[in-house]
Amino acid sequence: VSEREKRGTHVLQAVVEVVADHGLDGVSMRTVAAAAGISLAQVQYYFRSKDELLAAAFQHVGAGVEQRAADVDTAGHPRDVLRRLLRLWLPLNEARARDARVWVAFTAASATSAALRTINLAIDHDMRSWFAEFLRRAQLSGHLDAGLDPEVEGALLLALVDGLVLQALACPTLDDGVALVTTSMDVYLARLFINHGRVH
Amino acid sequence: VSEREKRGTHVLQAVVEVVADHGLDGVSMRTVAAAAGISLAQVQYYFRSKDELLAAAFQHVGAGVEQRAADVDTAGHPRDVLRRLLRLWLPLNEARARDARVWVAFTAASATSAALRTINLAIDHDMRSWFAEFLRRAQLSGHLDAGLDPEVEGALLLALVDGLVLQALACPTLDDGVALVTTSMDVYLARLFINHGRVH
Repeated sequence: VSEREKRGTHVLQAVVEVVADHGLDGVSMRTVAAAAGISLAQVQYYFRSKDELLAAAFQHVGAGVEQRAADVDTAGHPRDVLRRLLRLWLPLNEARARDARVWVAFTAASATSAALRTINLAIDHDMRSWFAEFLRRAQLSGHLDAGLDPEVEGALLLALVDGLVLQALACPTLDDGVALVTTSMDVYLARLFINHGRVH
Repeated sequence: VSEREKRGTHVLQAVVEVVADHGLDGVSMRTVAAAAGISLAQVQYYFRSKDELLAAAFQHVGAGVEQRAADVDTAGHPRDVLRRLLRLWLPLNEARARDARVWVAFTAASATSAALRTINLAIDHDMRSWFAEFLRRAQLSGHLDAGLDPEVEGALLLALVDGLVLQALACPTLDDGVALVTTSMDVYLARLFINHGRVH
């Protein structure tokens, strides 16, 4: 990673902080410069426009989400691996709730921005593929019913985690959200894997 | 419904159109007046501020969503009733995609607005309760495994439909989205009801 890239990442992290606190409405070249503790000219050195800045920040957020999947401990029953992974995305603490709010803000903006929608689609596609590949391996190891379609199940897992994130964020307190979504997730994963596969 | 309420609803529908085309960023007392074909003073007669306007518009959108559940034809197997209902919310045509974009915009704004979050929570709560009550009746009629927790299954159904809406909106074309989410939904509902209940 070059010095330029490192500084660019510092600016993108500042965008994320601004979005978490004020939503996408709060983002301007000026507010990001202030949050990053650098000058407006320095922000403009890395990103020519607000649109370019937002696109890069969304890609940065998406890369973080995908990194968590790549880093997850894959030891044990696939149900437990998925449980660990989904818990990394759900807003189970203040830091994760901030991440989740930022993700929702960018997802919503994708509805009216073609550039952001392209990035959103790529993230969704990568996530579904990751889930599908994981479930395919679970079928090969005999942990998951071979009759299931891994692509469809991948789309369902993505829908589940996205939808649970939204419900958790709507809750009045973090604890209410945690109780609601962890129970739901556990029931879903138990049903997905129930009565299938030999014990290893 | 009084004349005043009818005119108020006309203004709220104008907010929805502005949000569908330009996102929440595009909403101001002025743009809404223009979209509604009335004067700024007339908008101000109904709503004192942009915040009040947005809160009323979100409530209007939520009421529309809940009305679709109240209106759904409940004849037949509960699996088919749910299938019909979820199809009313998914972005399966341009009009529904507009509705879905508006819902996503308000949901995202709830992350940074306490007033909108309160409304969001109330809508989520009503939807989960509707699903839970529906599933409870499906258990009583022997169509659904009595061992399932209707509250948890209600939260899962809400997560499913919310998550599938997001995935469909991210797709490059409406048709791609339709194919992705209808298949996923059918697989989910088949598994929820599989091997349970007597045939009526």
